[in-house]
Amino acid sequence: MAIENTIHEVMEQARTAFNVYNQTSYTTRCTLSDEIIHQLKQVRTLLIDTAAAETHLKQERLNAEFERTLHQFNTYFKAYANGNWLLPRIDTVKKDVRKTYIPLGPVVVYGASNFPFAYSTPGGDVASALAAGCTVVVKAHPAHPQTASIAAQAIQQAVQNVGLPPGTFQQLQLADAAQGKRLVQHPATAAVAFTGSYLGGRQLFDWANERDQPIPVFAEMGSVNPVFILSHPATSDMDALAVKLCASVSQSSGQFCTKPGIIVGLQSNEWDQFKQAFHHQLSLQAPSTLLHPGIHRQFISGVTQRTQIPAVQTLLNIHSDSNIAQPVLHEVAAQTFLNEQSLQEEVFGPCTLLVTCNAKEEMLAVAQSLQGQLTCTVISNEDNDSYLKEWMEILQQKAGRLILNDVPTGVEVVSAMQHGGPFPATTDSRFTSVGPDSVLRFVRPVVYQQFPNHLLPDALKNENPLQIERMVNGQITKNAL
Amino acid sequence: MAIENTIHEVMEQARTAFNVYNQTSYTTRCTLSDEIIHQLKQVRTLLIDTAAAETHLKQERLNAEFERTLHQFNTYFKAYANGNWLLPRIDTVKKDVRKTYIPLGPVVVYGASNFPFAYSTPGGDVASALAAGCTVVVKAHPAHPQTASIAAQAIQQAVQNVGLPPGTFQQLQLADAAQGKRLVQHPATAAVAFTGSYLGGRQLFDWANERDQPIPVFAEMGSVNPVFILSHPATSDMDALAVKLCASVSQSSGQFCTKPGIIVGLQSNEWDQFKQAFHHQLSLQAPSTLLHPGIHRQFISGVTQRTQIPAVQTLLNIHSDSNIAQPVLHEVAAQTFLNEQSLQEEVFGPCTLLVTCNAKEEMLAVAQSLQGQLTCTVISNEDNDSYLKEWMEILQQKAGRLILNDVPTGVEVVSAMQHGGPFPATTDSRFTSVGPDSVLRFVRPVVYQQFPNHLLPDALKNENPLQIERMVNGQITKNAL
Repeated sequence: MAIENTIHEVMEQARTAFNVYNQTSYTTRCTLSDEIIHQLKQVRTLLIDTAAAETHLKQERLNAEFERTLHQFNTYFKAYANGNWLLPRIDTVKKDVRKTYIPLGPVVVYGASNFPFAYSTPGGDVASALAAGCTVVVKAHPAHPQTASIAAQAIQQAVQNVGLPPGTFQQLQLADAAQGKRLVQHPATAAVAFTGSYLGGRQLFDWANERDQPIPVFAEMGSVNPVFILSHPATSDMDALAVKLCASVSQSSGQFCTKPGIIVGLQSNEWDQFKQAFHHQLSLQAPSTLLHPGIHRQFISGVTQRTQIPAVQTLLNIHSDSNIAQPVLHEVAAQTFLNEQSLQEEVFGPCTLLVTCNAKEEMLAVAQSLQGQLTCTVISNEDNDSYLKEWMEILQQKAGRLILNDVPTGVEVVSAMQHGGPFPATTDSRFTSVGPDSVLRFVRPVVYQQFPNHLLPDALKNENPLQIERMVNGQITKNAL
Repeated sequence: MAIENTIHEVMEQARTAFNVYNQTSYTTRCTLSDEIIHQLKQVRTLLIDTAAAETHLKQERLNAEFERTLHQFNTYFKAYANGNWLLPRIDTVKKDVRKTYIPLGPVVVYGASNFPFAYSTPGGDVASALAAGCTVVVKAHPAHPQTASIAAQAIQQAVQNVGLPPGTFQQLQLADAAQGKRLVQHPATAAVAFTGSYLGGRQLFDWANERDQPIPVFAEMGSVNPVFILSHPATSDMDALAVKLCASVSQSSGQFCTKPGIIVGLQSNEWDQFKQAFHHQLSLQAPSTLLHPGIHRQFISGVTQRTQIPAVQTLLNIHSDSNIAQPVLHEVAAQTFLNEQSLQEEVFGPCTLLVTCNAKEEMLAVAQSLQGQLTCTVISNEDNDSYLKEWMEILQQKAGRLILNDVPTGVEVVSAMQHGGPFPATTDSRFTSVGPDSVLRFVRPVVYQQFPNHLLPDALKNENPLQIERMVNGQITKNAL
């Protein structure tokens, strides 16, 4: 009963704070962002040490993730404030109609286990919701409660220092699914952001749609991120490719949503050479501790399930002790892959599946069979453009990001990034959770018709006081009206 | 069984055609749009006569709607083709990451009863989906099957003349809800657009979310479009206001989703004068034939329900014969409105509800109690800006469009338009079904990472061959890289 009251109080506080925070200027929001960055830096060592203990991720990785987290606050707030992302529209030819964006309302963010900073309490979903003008309630991930607490305190201190109401940012540590349901279905909740498993994301999506007033859910639910090695030799150095792909599969113990989960090649001497080199490289990787026992259980269960399919060949078998895992490698013929839908399911952790095709047609069939992906990668030194374009056509129907001769891990935080893809990679392929465009999940257009200039929001005033780009009678311009 | 096979075949044809149509250039799509306009003009008289017979809408209104329909094709295709709506993003500082939009896939459009052209077979949903590069299957509205057939033939002729596959545009006339469900849940259906009632829209939304792979549904489900007459005298001429609002309530027999369904005023001599003038104006309106017997039944049932609430005062009673209706007017005290949730439900047709408040606080309470709206209107000659801004703050949380001293009907088809609002006005307040931005419902971002220039889509090539605005390393520019 107590926690249910708490959920209600927290969401009502988020609603009350929204009435204040949604009216703040872009300048105030940027001040908040600067102060959050300042406060996070104050506890940097503590955060990294705590996260290392709770998640078993390495210091080097956590340091990089911390920098990325600060970069997200910086770029999302500034991008939104400078107005390029708003691109307000003004039409004056017949009636005076002017459109800009306003925030949706309180956003509930579900932290991810695999990014204790960048997709958790101080993460991209929080940064984009706050930049949009929404208040935020984080449901902390239970795998790193102390890290989440320290980060939440830093953000709450920043909120207080800037003079905003405490309900601007709050965090809950919940014990069970029924509480999560109550949070998603609370009348004050206006949107949900989530990074995690398919089952978790789908559950939140279903709860949100069951509401009398459904709300948008952006759930990033992972992906197998296929890599297609188109023709052979696909590069002048198949060994170097093996090293590069091995790093992409095994870094941070394979616990990335963009980890290459299947690598597809064409039967040939070069493919054999690649497989051998890849197998060798992967076998050299040291055992590593996974994020938490739940991830470990799912990893063991996922790879075991593969072992039980008769036609799947085990190249590196499960060696695992308590929460520690060594990389696992399987190989399968394309026909088996095409017949076994379960092989399309993501197995989170240090493993991948090699898929061997007998012919290009079979490889195309594998591509066509794929469900929605965050990324698809093509390795090729093909100079046959029409063949490559055919691949681009097929793969762009499957994914939000296509990559040529590179790896899918290492998602750049830039304005051109798309981290989202057709279901089940995400619940809505029209949005991204990485890059400043992630703000667009949490705003909606609002039009002012026939209002006098002095009553309009600054973004829409004739004199363009924010000095932003706008679309005025169909033309993009910074000019005043 | 036969129709189920037909649905399957139609959707498979839409899927096959999509593989061709989604690869067409913007130029080809604009050629298609021009040809559709040409073909529609060829059957203009036939279309208008048929629609007049089927819908009982007046020739003058249908002529205007026909022009609007052509304007939609023109502006949506051209806006999307000129690239301002794409605003592709290119980042090259670290990795080469470039983002543009691709179409979602085959879109199913449910035609509306009240706009036989502009929101039906040749309507805005069809224009925006085709402009996006999606193929379209229209589920024709059963209230105007002949109009729908003639329009579909014109569009199909245009598709053929431009040399596109017949599956680019198809139409189905379905008999029952089970068939509609099959259509929404067909694996090839990638998105749904709908304009109509709450029950219809919510049903499509629920079917789409039940799918193994949920798809986006944009359902515009109507609204009561409250008009607040803030203080008195709100204008120098309350009689003129009565005439203007009466026209907005009664034009096209009140069968607009932006019809003012409640008019809220403050007890005063001027409000009494307005009510009297409004009552008089509305009583002068001739009886009119509604779109179809179903709308008439719902109208009679909706206004009868109001009559049965004891505290509701009937100013103009139901006079109705078969499918013909005269305007109906009720008045209620704000306290009754606040206590009777059913008074917030839209009653489609020639009627409205006057809500009388005893104090400004009561009027604010009425505003706060509202569910999601397409529009909210304020009538005021108030020179107290902070008071007006308070109203704007409250009402923009409720609606997609705010209007000052004007009427909500007459939705301008311009780039700044927003025709969409918080649930239950629409299923997703982040999108619009009017204006070129309506295309954004049917596209998703896709990123090309580390691709050589010659393999990129034209929108993303270094030399900017389409000569469009792009965001390059955070700056909007038409310059080549």
